[in-house]
Amino acid sequence: MSDLLIRNCNVLNITIDARAFILYEHDILIGSNRIEAVQPTGMADPSHFKQVIEANGLLAMPGLINTHAHVPMVIFRGLAEDVTIEQWFNDYMWPLESNLQAEDVYWGMQLGLAEMIRAGVTSVADHYFYMDETAKAVEKAGTRALLGWAIFGNNGYAMIDRTAQFIQEWQGAANGRIRTIMAPHSPYLCDDDYLRAGVKKAAALHVGIHIHASEEMGQTRSSLEKRGLTPIQVLEQTGVLDVPTIIAHGCGVLPEDMPILAKHEAGFAHAPKTYLKLAMGTAPVAGFRQHGIPVGLATDGAVSNNTLDIFESMRLMAMTQKQASGTPTTLPIPEALYIATRESARVYGQPDELGALDPGNLADLILVDLSGMHHQPLHSMTASLVYNVRASDVRTTICDGKVLMLDGKLLTLDEGEIVAQVKSSMERLAQRQPDKRIQVYNP
Amino acid sequence: MSDLLIRNCNVLNITIDARAFILYEHDILIGSNRIEAVQPTGMADPSHFKQVIEANGLLAMPGLINTHAHVPMVIFRGLAEDVTIEQWFNDYMWPLESNLQAEDVYWGMQLGLAEMIRAGVTSVADHYFYMDETAKAVEKAGTRALLGWAIFGNNGYAMIDRTAQFIQEWQGAANGRIRTIMAPHSPYLCDDDYLRAGVKKAAALHVGIHIHASEEMGQTRSSLEKRGLTPIQVLEQTGVLDVPTIIAHGCGVLPEDMPILAKHEAGFAHAPKTYLKLAMGTAPVAGFRQHGIPVGLATDGAVSNNTLDIFESMRLMAMTQKQASGTPTTLPIPEALYIATRESARVYGQPDELGALDPGNLADLILVDLSGMHHQPLHSMTASLVYNVRASDVRTTICDGKVLMLDGKLLTLDEGEIVAQVKSSMERLAQRQPDKRIQVYNP
Repeated sequence: MSDLLIRNCNVLNITIDARAFILYEHDILIGSNRIEAVQPTGMADPSHFKQVIEANGLLAMPGLINTHAHVPMVIFRGLAEDVTIEQWFNDYMWPLESNLQAEDVYWGMQLGLAEMIRAGVTSVADHYFYMDETAKAVEKAGTRALLGWAIFGNNGYAMIDRTAQFIQEWQGAANGRIRTIMAPHSPYLCDDDYLRAGVKKAAALHVGIHIHASEEMGQTRSSLEKRGLTPIQVLEQTGVLDVPTIIAHGCGVLPEDMPILAKHEAGFAHAPKTYLKLAMGTAPVAGFRQHGIPVGLATDGAVSNNTLDIFESMRLMAMTQKQASGTPTTLPIPEALYIATRESARVYGQPDELGALDPGNLADLILVDLSGMHHQPLHSMTASLVYNVRASDVRTTICDGKVLMLDGKLLTLDEGEIVAQVKSSMERLAQRQPDKRIQVYNP
Repeated sequence: MSDLLIRNCNVLNITIDARAFILYEHDILIGSNRIEAVQPTGMADPSHFKQVIEANGLLAMPGLINTHAHVPMVIFRGLAEDVTIEQWFNDYMWPLESNLQAEDVYWGMQLGLAEMIRAGVTSVADHYFYMDETAKAVEKAGTRALLGWAIFGNNGYAMIDRTAQFIQEWQGAANGRIRTIMAPHSPYLCDDDYLRAGVKKAAALHVGIHIHASEEMGQTRSSLEKRGLTPIQVLEQTGVLDVPTIIAHGCGVLPEDMPILAKHEAGFAHAPKTYLKLAMGTAPVAGFRQHGIPVGLATDGAVSNNTLDIFESMRLMAMTQKQASGTPTTLPIPEALYIATRESARVYGQPDELGALDPGNLADLILVDLSGMHHQPLHSMTASLVYNVRASDVRTTICDGKVLMLDGKLLTLDEGEIVAQVKSSMERLAQRQPDKRIQVYNP
């Protein structure tokens, strides 16, 4: 008796050399929290499984991975539009975040997780505050998360210890669904000694670092002017690149940074909707990939990105890279899907367990309905996944072998309760007192 | 007894000076095919209406207008990905279109109209072949369309007469829902005399011109090299700009073209997803608007744009204009909504009847559900409409006072039959014989 049989789906297969093809009319067999087999429909006897999901031709693909977000920020969604980056931080986001209470994070995280489960996102590398609240929400939602408690240099060294305590408490929790990471905000808000102390603690705890750096070219220019180093060089000198690192966002990475990055294990989280909205230029995705530097998809927070939709990030990445290179053959469909799956798993730190529906991997997968009018006629399933799909086409979401959404119905979270809770604090959260900002942006 | 009462919606109001606000808890009263009143809920007695739709807080806004498409091309969707413009035309699209039969257009048009009704698009300026078939499909679907039969110079002058015959047959048909237009393909595939003959015929028939010009900068450079004129100057010299004109796409418009355009009535159709995918740069939307030149939203055909989703076009327009200007304050939310509504109606040629839910206007409107997790909490409905909304959030679509989709169910088209018909010809349509292309792209 095995646990779960997903019958008769078309399985998206992305090879390790970034080719994409479809296995038509296949079953996926799941035992406990792992994929046991992917095989032609008809071989498995449904009566040998505790649960059977009839996919009826839906497309199965790995659960999507969001490599950089501030999920609970959904509670502020829509409050900082059409403003510059400086205004966004200093006049909106950081004053708004002075309103934040632990309970806001708990409900905001649930809201964002509900949105992501609906959009087929099963893993998120989250970078925020009150992270024990996010961990409780992840535990309840049934998703996977890599949680980092955001800290700033002027929080003092005691905050590194507070983070370490969080890491020790939650690392490996929820059947391994929860992993943790140190999350110093950025080189511009953590001085070198603070970064070094964070790295030392991370290494001692066997975790990595999740940090913002070279977010846009202005930060790089400023760093070069102030100290003659690019932000990436600062990360190298302070040892940040010596532990597994996620860097958001890298739109300011220079050609001379590439060889440094190529020598280390750091990967980039790519959130193109935020870059467009804040006119940040874009990250050199082709350059990263030529140097073997991992790139994963991300949404950033919903106050810049508005949604937590990785399909949208994939589409925008492919399109903006074409536009930036001036060449429409740039970042073709199989490569976009490869970045959305295997590469994102690599940045997330679980390349051997996530990002592919291979036997032995963790059972994180989604079923996508390509029967809608916006996909028809389906000359190319892979083209449809990159350029036509909507988050609302995701019908079923499975994480760690457990069904989180079945045919559009969430099974672990109570959306009515979540929305009611979040709405009840809307007015309080929307207050802005510029003199009460939590930090100042002046990179 | 009046016809239709839409009760208790939040009505998006876009003023003529491009401000956006919401009328909360209002009713929309419709008599025959026009809006009679928009007034606070509670004033109208539901028993005085033949039909009542309970909106229960859905957002009402004008039906979206697609100012440039090749709708029946949905039948080729997904067949030309990650290729250059030259390949797209010469190796894919024009060989594929040699397979085209009248019946393909009839079913392809229905498929595209079904996708658009679902996405809240009630009007489309379509530019394709076998246009009597598209007219029959529009008649059946209940939408509005401005139909132009695409002609090339090497089709000969008889094709102008064939087009004229189509115009005379269909202009004003389907209770005025169908309008017609002359559609010479472009200055690079119609010589000056052919353009002049088209203009003469259009003027005699009291219709406008729908044409491709200055689609990207390469075309402009080529035109300057070959004859010392920009494509816009060619349009001026051949009289095209003397009749109401829709120009797709204008990514190659130069500053010196602006004063010419400002003197005439031509408007631009803006399809940013196609521009991104084909790395065409982008159109100078801010420049157009500074010169008072109308700009409307468009999807182009689904072989470059993949979807017929005007919400997606609106979002991409706002984001790519921010990116192109390097300034995130460019094209703020109210302006994006203004272009999607009133400006698109202007390009479409019905500025006094469409694009606003004003009493006396034609009753084309949609009800949008902003209750999804990806909108919550709803700090800003207008931000959500530009940056969060999905086509699948459209619940109800009304055109010319008639309900075409009610709570997600299409009432005029049979989706099962349409998909079956289109699928049955997929294999034949996907054949490519490069020696059998309908035209050659060499601008």
